[in-house]
Amino acid sequence: MADDALVIFTPSGKRGRVPVGTSVLAAARKLGVDLDSVCGGRGICSKCQIAPSYGEFSKHGVHVSPDALTDLNAVEERYDRVRGLKPGRRLGCQACVQGDVIVDVPPESQVHKQVIRKSASERVMVMDPAVRAYLVDVAEPDMHEPLGDFQRLAAALAAQWDVQGLRPDLAVLARLQPALRKGNWQVTVAVHDAGDGARLIAVWPGFRDAPLYGIAIDLGSTTIAGHLVALDDGRVLASSGVMNPQIRFGEDLMSRVSYVMMNAGGDREMTAAVQEAMGALASALAEDAGIDPQDIMEATIVCNPVMHHLLLGIDPVELGQAPFALATSDSLSLPASDAGLDTIAPAGRVYILPLIAGHVGADAAAVALSEAPERRDDLSLIVDVGTNAEILLGNSSRVLACSSPTGPAFEGAQISSGQRAAPGAIERIEIDPVTKAPRFKIIGNAHWSNEPEFGTPLITGICGSGIIEAVAEMRMAGICDASGLIGSAQQVGTERCTPSGRTHEYVIFDATPEGPRITVTQGDIRAIQLAKSALYAGARLLMDEMGVDTVDRVVLAGAFGAHISAKHAMVLGMIPDVPLDCVISAGNAAGTGARMALCSVKARRQIEAQVKRIDKIETAIEPKFQEHFVAANALPHATDPFTGLREIAPLPDVSFNSGGDGSGTGRRRKRRGG
Amino acid sequence: MADDALVIFTPSGKRGRVPVGTSVLAAARKLGVDLDSVCGGRGICSKCQIAPSYGEFSKHGVHVSPDALTDLNAVEERYDRVRGLKPGRRLGCQACVQGDVIVDVPPESQVHKQVIRKSASERVMVMDPAVRAYLVDVAEPDMHEPLGDFQRLAAALAAQWDVQGLRPDLAVLARLQPALRKGNWQVTVAVHDAGDGARLIAVWPGFRDAPLYGIAIDLGSTTIAGHLVALDDGRVLASSGVMNPQIRFGEDLMSRVSYVMMNAGGDREMTAAVQEAMGALASALAEDAGIDPQDIMEATIVCNPVMHHLLLGIDPVELGQAPFALATSDSLSLPASDAGLDTIAPAGRVYILPLIAGHVGADAAAVALSEAPERRDDLSLIVDVGTNAEILLGNSSRVLACSSPTGPAFEGAQISSGQRAAPGAIERIEIDPVTKAPRFKIIGNAHWSNEPEFGTPLITGICGSGIIEAVAEMRMAGICDASGLIGSAQQVGTERCTPSGRTHEYVIFDATPEGPRITVTQGDIRAIQLAKSALYAGARLLMDEMGVDTVDRVVLAGAFGAHISAKHAMVLGMIPDVPLDCVISAGNAAGTGARMALCSVKARRQIEAQVKRIDKIETAIEPKFQEHFVAANALPHATDPFTGLREIAPLPDVSFNSGGDGSGTGRRRKRRGG
Repeated sequence: MADDALVIFTPSGKRGRVPVGTSVLAAARKLGVDLDSVCGGRGICSKCQIAPSYGEFSKHGVHVSPDALTDLNAVEERYDRVRGLKPGRRLGCQACVQGDVIVDVPPESQVHKQVIRKSASERVMVMDPAVRAYLVDVAEPDMHEPLGDFQRLAAALAAQWDVQGLRPDLAVLARLQPALRKGNWQVTVAVHDAGDGARLIAVWPGFRDAPLYGIAIDLGSTTIAGHLVALDDGRVLASSGVMNPQIRFGEDLMSRVSYVMMNAGGDREMTAAVQEAMGALASALAEDAGIDPQDIMEATIVCNPVMHHLLLGIDPVELGQAPFALATSDSLSLPASDAGLDTIAPAGRVYILPLIAGHVGADAAAVALSEAPERRDDLSLIVDVGTNAEILLGNSSRVLACSSPTGPAFEGAQISSGQRAAPGAIERIEIDPVTKAPRFKIIGNAHWSNEPEFGTPLITGICGSGIIEAVAEMRMAGICDASGLIGSAQQVGTERCTPSGRTHEYVIFDATPEGPRITVTQGDIRAIQLAKSALYAGARLLMDEMGVDTVDRVVLAGAFGAHISAKHAMVLGMIPDVPLDCVISAGNAAGTGARMALCSVKARRQIEAQVKRIDKIETAIEPKFQEHFVAANALPHATDPFTGLREIAPLPDVSFNSGGDGSGTGRRRKRRGG
Repeated sequence: MADDALVIFTPSGKRGRVPVGTSVLAAARKLGVDLDSVCGGRGICSKCQIAPSYGEFSKHGVHVSPDALTDLNAVEERYDRVRGLKPGRRLGCQACVQGDVIVDVPPESQVHKQVIRKSASERVMVMDPAVRAYLVDVAEPDMHEPLGDFQRLAAALAAQWDVQGLRPDLAVLARLQPALRKGNWQVTVAVHDAGDGARLIAVWPGFRDAPLYGIAIDLGSTTIAGHLVALDDGRVLASSGVMNPQIRFGEDLMSRVSYVMMNAGGDREMTAAVQEAMGALASALAEDAGIDPQDIMEATIVCNPVMHHLLLGIDPVELGQAPFALATSDSLSLPASDAGLDTIAPAGRVYILPLIAGHVGADAAAVALSEAPERRDDLSLIVDVGTNAEILLGNSSRVLACSSPTGPAFEGAQISSGQRAAPGAIERIEIDPVTKAPRFKIIGNAHWSNEPEFGTPLITGICGSGIIEAVAEMRMAGICDASGLIGSAQQVGTERCTPSGRTHEYVIFDATPEGPRITVTQGDIRAIQLAKSALYAGARLLMDEMGVDTVDRVVLAGAFGAHISAKHAMVLGMIPDVPLDCVISAGNAAGTGARMALCSVKARRQIEAQVKRIDKIETAIEPKFQEHFVAANALPHATDPFTGLREIAPLPDVSFNSGGDGSGTGRRRKRRGG
């Protein structure tokens, strides 16, 4: 047998000769093969499992004899006995090369595991977190060479793992000495390196056989949602949300900015409130997953610009007035405690995605990371509907972004019977075009209200998706006209249209006097019209800038986007018309982007670069935005825009105005005329 | 006249040709001449003042015509009118080169000013602080290119000052937006760069015409002393000290370590106490100097290892037992708030000098920086006497360091009539060898106690330097023998020797019953003997290691070193015998080292490198230390070691022991024999 042997790794195809007696792990490192190890070849961590193949491999031109690797040794036998080794598997650090061999690295043994990310545009994500664990043996103190424990740890990490220039953190320094002594000079450390140098962020005595964790936080104006993620394979262990306690200072962002302007120290109050909530969310996520919150090493945060500044203790007042100047726009890497996350690892870190513009925040950047329109040749319109709408339009040539001031009507706020999405809220609605009678579904009940199984649940109000469907259905049933005006009982032909002041309202549900009375008022329709006009005008502005009249696909992002009915959105004229199967719900794309940044340093670099490339459009100073806004006020479609039909029968369009079809034509003309 | 002209700068001698019309400041930058400017040539800061010379300069081979520079312009005339321009001075940014010229850069116009540092070894120090001020014009916000204010500031600093890669700090980000608007997009910023990247640490609207400040802190076990320093020229504006509040947890370091071991959370209590005192000291220094504490940008800290760990929240318990492992030994650069300095600039920084060993701290490193024995060919023994003594021995070939456990006797603690150096304490003493009567001086009184002008002040006790002189004088007057034993009234021939239990004490002052009775007891002499033996044994151990029997000079450092009498120290055998004029008091060398590090990044790099080169000797594990310690117990000199004489008459040595001259000979044999 030769002094060296050929080793071929699959699936990478990397190959090379190593001296006989080399461990498979050492061979993998030499050949640049992605084989995981936390213990560095001590036979402890079992991360380096591989599967050798034996036999004739004409494709590779090798014959692999059954003794190409050393026999199972005592370490492997013990591991198999205690923890169980899958058939055919070996520990890469124990099995040594004896002859030519083909070695398969199974997916779970790769450092940079590939994870299929389920979203609108399903993509493979490669695990590349900022934090990694290393097992190290540290030299004992030497009174003749009295280096600090930290310096000897740093030297060991450099020698054993090629981690150079480790920097300390006071919180870890305080724990280092007991850990080293308890572990008898062997410790597992967590090192954070997101391209800005290696930092020691946690230390445990001996070998720590557990994943490290991170949290991805979507810090919204109304709710703060978080996912607890295992940093080895990206799986989500817990998801939770808390109300943003800043709500008590103002329902929407601008009222919070006003609060700061009117109250000295108001920004500090709001910063303290949201930071406390962030810490509580982290604790809640850890409790849900049954882990110690101190095992959370890093958090990524996405949020709008006002929340961003209020989180970091920066007065947001400049964001309330032109030119909407951000204090800072780049991504930030900070101690987690700077963002109030003082319940996680004391030396934990936080990464906040970059902001795109004064009205287009890190949440929009996260959507851009998640949906990546720049990776597609077709033209995507991506809409994240929340209190404001962030809109992206782009393809592989160019990406544009803007924010549109929709207000909170789409979230059920400022609607007479409106409420947040919660059990008891009407979320779906259909109106019979003949009888004008509604049927609906409420959150927490699988049945329609006209089905016997619906029962007699408590009906509390109407949420964002419900009000959109209600207005669209009212339009299609001829209850309101193109200008949005609700007809009288006589005009519409149903007693459900009742007078309310100088206008009419449509009664969806009435349990008076025992229970609630849920109606859609003229004011509700006006609120929805304003919101949808703003959204549409923003999209239209970007289309103008791009020089197009149509888009290839519409992606609805946001928790709200997940529940919105594409058909009803188009009836309302919220979004440009596209074939129904080209409207995609991306779910919580901002949260997905936050998770991607948590799992991958490369993703952070991608979105940082991409944000600089995005062309930013400021709706507030574009005269065309006002034009589009006014022109988009009408409710254009009296019929299903895809079929031109109702299930029962098409109805002629109606007008309750004396002045004809109102302003709705303006929009149609712009889009379809010429 | 040619299109370009020769410009010669003095005192640097740098020369070169520049196009006619070039400002002197621009010419200086082009030729690499060290000419200061904060405003970058806007005619605001007046830091770039220069003095042109006219006439024939055969040495340089040039004739400088009176019109070699442009005439005084409007900016200079206004400056002269408002602030006054010294005769012959010009503003380098306004005066432009018209012909060959010789330009002198006066010392105050140099960025890296040379400062003569007054200390034992007078040295020139070059100002090279980590923090510099820059005046910058920042681009206004652009809604089409919505970069953050910070990003535009960073771009301006890069373009206007070549400061690259500026990093933000949350505390400054919160102040940036109002400052930019108040200054109409012109701000003065303070940037910290100690070789670890540029950080924005303060911002002011418009041009800030004031120096930046720093504080150098000597954090001792008993007192925390600080100097407030102007970072432009290194001058000290205020000096102050506060008691270390940790005193209430234990007088000496080891009792504080014990407190931590006995009380859960004891380290946190002590950390909180000392951090609070640090903040209070910074405020007090600013108040003394009449400046805003928030204009303090940086602090440097020197301290012993236990104080170091307690300051940073690290349990010091490992330092109380072999192998005396430090948690971290390298220098640290941290946010100032991490060291409790939350009264200075919110984004201020702190630099803590490196530790040499488990018993040899950053204070000893500061002494090594200040006294720099490695820069001399003769052999220096440097002793910093405090609660412990840190000892350095070295020359240009090699430097050794150790710490010796003297205990606090030299500071007046554990002495029957002992007290800290404060008004009323006896600090000098002489004993008449014939009458055995003492005379003394007290702190706060310029006269000897036997002079009429002495009056009848309150005499409160005896301080460290007083007890050393007292014991040495007692030895020379024959009141105690070589073993330290105090003779009886009969043996000595004075009623001042009175019985005290089974031994005798010597009465220095007795105002009973009206006032204090100050004596030196047998126990006091034993305490001083233990302390001086430890000090001497440490020095001797280093001399053994160096292979020498004598040193060329002895440097006494520390506040105590400033007051100690070299002669009496040698009578006691505290330090090896050298000619009296080779004993130098370096004053508070640790504090000086802290100031040097504050004023110079280069000095930080020097001491960081030097600390790695120093050979560390751990006295606790060297058997020879015990030998030297025992051998050094005696009081060797019965006469003045320099003259062999008392002023009046030499006295024969005495012994009150039955066993001859006791253990004193052991030490003499070792040093003088063979």
